[in-house]
Amino acid sequence: MKIRLGLDIGGTTVHGIAVTASEPHDLVSQATHPTRQGADGVVGGALDMVAALRSDLPPDAEIISIGLGVPGVVHGGAVTHAVNLGLDGEPLDLAAAVSAGAGGTPTTVENDVKAATLGGWQWLREQGTDIDDLALLNVGTGIAAGLLLDGRLRHGSRGMAGEIGHLVHDPTGPLCACGRRGCLELYASGSGVRRQWAGTAAELFEAADSGDADAARIRDELTSGIAQAISLLAYSVDVSCVLVTGGVVTATPALRDAILEQLRRDENTSLGRLAGIADRVRWLPAGHPAGALGAALLGAGDEGARPWKL
Amino acid sequence: MKIRLGLDIGGTTVHGIAVTASEPHDLVSQATHPTRQGADGVVGGALDMVAALRSDLPPDAEIISIGLGVPGVVHGGAVTHAVNLGLDGEPLDLAAAVSAGAGGTPTTVENDVKAATLGGWQWLREQGTDIDDLALLNVGTGIAAGLLLDGRLRHGSRGMAGEIGHLVHDPTGPLCACGRRGCLELYASGSGVRRQWAGTAAELFEAADSGDADAARIRDELTSGIAQAISLLAYSVDVSCVLVTGGVVTATPALRDAILEQLRRDENTSLGRLAGIADRVRWLPAGHPAGALGAALLGAGDEGARPWKL
Repeated sequence: MKIRLGLDIGGTTVHGIAVTASEPHDLVSQATHPTRQGADGVVGGALDMVAALRSDLPPDAEIISIGLGVPGVVHGGAVTHAVNLGLDGEPLDLAAAVSAGAGGTPTTVENDVKAATLGGWQWLREQGTDIDDLALLNVGTGIAAGLLLDGRLRHGSRGMAGEIGHLVHDPTGPLCACGRRGCLELYASGSGVRRQWAGTAAELFEAADSGDADAARIRDELTSGIAQAISLLAYSVDVSCVLVTGGVVTATPALRDAILEQLRRDENTSLGRLAGIADRVRWLPAGHPAGALGAALLGAGDEGARPWKL
Repeated sequence: MKIRLGLDIGGTTVHGIAVTASEPHDLVSQATHPTRQGADGVVGGALDMVAALRSDLPPDAEIISIGLGVPGVVHGGAVTHAVNLGLDGEPLDLAAAVSAGAGGTPTTVENDVKAATLGGWQWLREQGTDIDDLALLNVGTGIAAGLLLDGRLRHGSRGMAGEIGHLVHDPTGPLCACGRRGCLELYASGSGVRRQWAGTAAELFEAADSGDADAARIRDELTSGIAQAISLLAYSVDVSCVLVTGGVVTATPALRDAILEQLRRDENTSLGRLAGIADRVRWLPAGHPAGALGAALLGAGDEGARPWKL
């Protein structure tokens, strides 16, 4: 049985899965470990996860690839900017280090949201939507997108394709940790809600509905910020589908409704009707392991075993 | 001698050129006609231009392709939205109509900015910058981009890739003709300047330097709007080069300096340094016929005669 491993290395946890190499990529084992920081911590943590997944595999299993998704900029095979992993210094060749520690198994590293895009693609395919053109919009602590364009995962000239979270959304807005003012991420993300609201997004919508003016403002900023991100993807690359994921969205049906309502309001123009953006939006179900699954699929792209290419 | 014709059909004039099919695409003849409106006017005007260009060609010339760039949305071979040409009703199969009227010569139609992207690519190549990844940002009456990504001209799922002019830039801004408020085009375009300022952009910068507060505000909105468009292209698709064209920019060195200064200010962050957007910017020289040349090159892409694909 040929197996691919996928590791979604987040700022707090590493989620690892082992799937069969051939479709439908049955889940064979999975595990969750706390993330360890710094170059040695990330490499050691990844190798511990590989060992943990391997120990759960049946005796006939053969691991043919390892894929790693990391929350940072990956370029030229190296992780160059991953603040949440304590990696903001020298570029780290994570793939080489993990491959060396895993007996030479072919290993690929990619930005986590780009990797998750392949997981989202696979989910759409299982739903009967077999497309080769897609943006995955991840509304997590920050907000960022991954792009599969004409069957190619868009990496970008510096590995930064889809990094829309620090585009300036409101130049008069508050100071962002990045040093600019009013970045999109300050409004359209989990951290954007948390900096202004103590409860969940669902509670935010309830409070706004009950007449809390502050809650209504924060709700509207969150809604229009995410709608702006979706519009930005539709008007810049004009993908046929924007698949939205991330806790704040998947856990809040009222937010999804509000986003679609906002996008439909924008269709009251001839260009807006032509664009038809609301109809392009899909929601990835809560708990879908797109990050780890997509990381596992990275190896398949390297080998040309899938309809898309890395 | 094999010849390609390229027609850049603008809202007021049609610019047509005949170039040799092989590099360096020598200019053999060119003409400028006033644009005629409506389906019959656009088709008739294009055929008149083809006849005018043909009459100037040497006897051994053979026209092997015609390319048409139009200011509108082109999808499935049809022009579906070109308000400035009086085409906003039924989709018009312009390529078929022109080909039929031109003795069956293979004819391709594309949005004008997308076509111009190929002309910009050719110009960069002649300058020694041979890249397959590029955005052309046209700051004209409106603002829109064309994308050549990994050697493919990005059309988009609805022919709208690069149509960033009606992304909302300031939700509290003035009403746009499109029906929304504060579209990017209201600030970062020739019409955006004209709605607030009677003179040229150069005079705007002079007035601002002399202490005119209104001029300074309009100047800053223009500068930061164009810088935002460039950043948006860099962070969404992460192209290695953003080639900026359009009269307001090419005629105003002070504007180009101000845009670069703004982009360099944005590099005072770790993500900004990594992105290095200012260094990606190139300016297409004033008067370069990128629109018509790119339209002529459309035929070469159809035949697989160039390193890029349509």
